[in-house]
Amino acid sequence: MKKNKKIYNPNMVFGINGCLNVLTAKKLEIVSIQVMIGGNAEHNKLINKHCNEFSHKVQKINKKEFLNRYSGLRTQGIVVLFKGKLYKQIPDFSNANSNFNLLILDNIEDPQNFGQIIRTAECAGVDGIVIPEHNSVDLTNTAIQISQGAFVHISIYKCVNINRLISDLKEQGFWIVGFENSINAKEWYNIDYNEKLALIFGSEGKGIRKKTIEKCDFLATIPMQGKISSLNVSATISAVMFERLRQISSL
Amino acid sequence: MKKNKKIYNPNMVFGINGCLNVLTAKKLEIVSIQVMIGGNAEHNKLINKHCNEFSHKVQKINKKEFLNRYSGLRTQGIVVLFKGKLYKQIPDFSNANSNFNLLILDNIEDPQNFGQIIRTAECAGVDGIVIPEHNSVDLTNTAIQISQGAFVHISIYKCVNINRLISDLKEQGFWIVGFENSINAKEWYNIDYNEKLALIFGSEGKGIRKKTIEKCDFLATIPMQGKISSLNVSATISAVMFERLRQISSL
Repeated sequence: MKKNKKIYNPNMVFGINGCLNVLTAKKLEIVSIQVMIGGNAEHNKLINKHCNEFSHKVQKINKKEFLNRYSGLRTQGIVVLFKGKLYKQIPDFSNANSNFNLLILDNIEDPQNFGQIIRTAECAGVDGIVIPEHNSVDLTNTAIQISQGAFVHISIYKCVNINRLISDLKEQGFWIVGFENSINAKEWYNIDYNEKLALIFGSEGKGIRKKTIEKCDFLATIPMQGKISSLNVSATISAVMFERLRQISSL
Repeated sequence: MKKNKKIYNPNMVFGINGCLNVLTAKKLEIVSIQVMIGGNAEHNKLINKHCNEFSHKVQKINKKEFLNRYSGLRTQGIVVLFKGKLYKQIPDFSNANSNFNLLILDNIEDPQNFGQIIRTAECAGVDGIVIPEHNSVDLTNTAIQISQGAFVHISIYKCVNINRLISDLKEQGFWIVGFENSINAKEWYNIDYNEKLALIFGSEGKGIRKKTIEKCDFLATIPMQGKISSLNVSATISAVMFERLRQISSL
């Protein structure tokens, strides 16, 4: 009983693509679909299909009121409010694929970066993303929006203690790679991604916490070519995840 | 005389790293350096060195007024206003390196994406970025800020007509690669980046213009793995630019 009573504030997503991803996700509860009269979404076939399915949740709103309510947002004429569990419990990965791939984000605080990472990871076929329970970015509406609905299709986990998780993952057959600039770090393309891997990324400013670095099997890095030497963490993850995909695809 | 009379509105950058890049760029005219009393930047050695150099341009501002003036921005206690030419004239590249690399951005409209692309390109050792004169994103303050000062260290060009530029580049020994999903497109890692290349990227929504696609020597793509099939253009460019770096580095 208690579980069912748990109240989730509705989350919000806007724009045709992001909304379509939420509307097709069976695990989320649709609270309301707000469609601007005369907007792009009103004439979108797929949006209309879902509006029929959730017809009692649809509110058609006149242009003036809609634009007033969502001023400054690129809604394309649609906003969806929804509830649901955004995170999964971390399972036992002992029987996961031989090239199963988990991203662990440490110290990342910017929801825009988090959203972008979710989107990139989903496109690159990453199997799951772990964030710490405390002192971390959360799946806020900003992150949800930037992810373009990708958060629906990729498993996102919260863990209480990253270092304990790493110990568990090692027992389940994972190699642990920390992305951190260091003289011991290999170039990112010299990691063998055809393995069961947990890849740990820190924020641009703080990097990965020291105790976590000590638990890594390998360190890896992308050597900077220019003068600013400050690659955004989501750009770093894109470079690494598609190098993984290259290695896996060219087998 | 006319040239010297051209008036540039001052651009703005904030945050320690971004400001340091602007302050060290000899080609920009520093209009003012605004430092918050008691802020992080006030005690930064490098910032102080430049404040001494430009002492007559420094304004120390009390916390209340500074925060009021720049509310909502992560300034780290420093804002720099500057003027200068942000774009270069496109030169003749006939004698450029055998793996010289030019990014051409077509149809990109979001200054956040543009800023992120500049930052990533600078870190990946890209030789230059071209944007069209019309119907394109510009080097706005948002793009400047997101680039973290990288715009200072990489050549950014404006061109009147991309298709004419492509013809010129071909005569100067470039291969032209368009990143566009198509049955004729090679995987991004099957492009030989040890060549003089111009790589063309369009926006996520619109892609590259048809007439420009027709002028490409090759098309390339990153096959999407997940369900959303919508990789952000700056994430795409990161994956491609670091694949180039991998190929060049492992020669």
